[in-house]
Amino acid sequence: MDTDTSSTGTLVLTIAYDGAPFAGFARQPGFDTVQERIESALATLLRREVECTGAGRTDAGVHALGQVVSVPLREELPDTHALLRSLNALMGEGIVVTSVMRGAPGFSARFDAESREYHYRIVPGPVPPLFLRDVAWWVKRTLDLGAMRDAAAALVGEHDFRSFCVTDSAKDRRTVRRLEMLDIAPAEHLGEHCVTVRVVGNAFLHSMVRVIVGSLVDVGCGRRSAEWLGEVLAARDRAAAGPTAPAHGLTLYHVSYAEECWL
Amino acid sequence: MDTDTSSTGTLVLTIAYDGAPFAGFARQPGFDTVQERIESALATLLRREVECTGAGRTDAGVHALGQVVSVPLREELPDTHALLRSLNALMGEGIVVTSVMRGAPGFSARFDAESREYHYRIVPGPVPPLFLRDVAWWVKRTLDLGAMRDAAAALVGEHDFRSFCVTDSAKDRRTVRRLEMLDIAPAEHLGEHCVTVRVVGNAFLHSMVRVIVGSLVDVGCGRRSAEWLGEVLAARDRAAAGPTAPAHGLTLYHVSYAEECWL
Repeated sequence: MDTDTSSTGTLVLTIAYDGAPFAGFARQPGFDTVQERIESALATLLRREVECTGAGRTDAGVHALGQVVSVPLREELPDTHALLRSLNALMGEGIVVTSVMRGAPGFSARFDAESREYHYRIVPGPVPPLFLRDVAWWVKRTLDLGAMRDAAAALVGEHDFRSFCVTDSAKDRRTVRRLEMLDIAPAEHLGEHCVTVRVVGNAFLHSMVRVIVGSLVDVGCGRRSAEWLGEVLAARDRAAAGPTAPAHGLTLYHVSYAEECWL
Repeated sequence: MDTDTSSTGTLVLTIAYDGAPFAGFARQPGFDTVQERIESALATLLRREVECTGAGRTDAGVHALGQVVSVPLREELPDTHALLRSLNALMGEGIVVTSVMRGAPGFSARFDAESREYHYRIVPGPVPPLFLRDVAWWVKRTLDLGAMRDAAAALVGEHDFRSFCVTDSAKDRRTVRRLEMLDIAPAEHLGEHCVTVRVVGNAFLHSMVRVIVGSLVDVGCGRRSAEWLGEVLAARDRAAAGPTAPAHGLTLYHVSYAEECWL
């Protein structure tokens, strides 16, 4: 946090959204984006232009349950309960503000985030998902979760994840990240069964979770051995990894901050 | 089961569907119905006209996870795995065949059902549901689950449920039903919290679960006392009960049959 003394504090919103209708989180002229929706609603309520910062710049089609957005305040914060209701009334279909909090001056949802948790849902087997069809990837094959867990172990810890980064710009950037958890477990939602890949890390490269999941599914289907994923990591080359899993299976689930960020 | 010896057995499908796109389960000329979709797909595969029977005639907007449908067979049953895949390829958006089984000759999904289980999902509180918005009723108020459970106890067992039946035709019909379970519990799906009302009974009157839920929510919000629901039951009059809860919160979850129904 820098010490922006002109600010009375920071407005911090937790938001959930359905990725399908949006061209991603980040504002792009001419497209419906999450950032633009939030900034418009806040501009109406605060009667001024607003620029917000999101903890994760999710791609088109990626969902969020616990995206965090920060806005430096120049005014006294309105009552948080009333603000929650007003924002949801203005927000429109596909996006919900789930909490309104007050952060310290200079707080940034992006730069102060200590870790991010993503969930990727997979429905294996011959029966297509119904209630989960928009939030899970139907892979049609049965999955060997034991092999996927063995493979996943190679990725936990601090590594150069260049092999799991989609954009070319990775060449010029630092691609070391720390994966704190990579857990694969059966789950049930709305009566339907799926496999949830839970990933926690300090930060993620572009499409990193989706390339990890696409590679893990290659292992789970038996197309690759569990040992292969360690070789992919060592190759430091996107071409070594598996396919990029589709966006609609991915949800930005939770973002963690230090206690002292809150007022 | 009657003994229809001209039949080689019965095709029994378990199906899941999203209630939103359908004008209910039962065929109605000019409307997209679940029954019509299933009969069309089966007609294509069996190369003849097909009439199917559903365990529950769900209303427009009501979902199903475990609806059961039976079709008397005149032919040898195709391989069930291949049939599952073919049916799902033909079924179109919003409906999925989750299992294909073989029933005894004369088996009826409707008349041989021993019990039906419905789930009704409610999201209480000021934050609207996002991922559950199409499968749960947002009531906006906090709910006293203890009061709802106390009220629900009066309904369990065999009773005349005339007060909880929407159609006028109830006048001329037997309206005694047996509720085996009426359970109210917090649940979590896709990271969102809800309250699930689970109801199991031998059979249900038209909109019975939805009127029960609408009345329970009146109790949960404090608009009515827990004792009131017993009075509603005794009144044998629809006007005594609470509102009909919206269709999109309701799911036909499971239908039970005796073991001897299966070949």
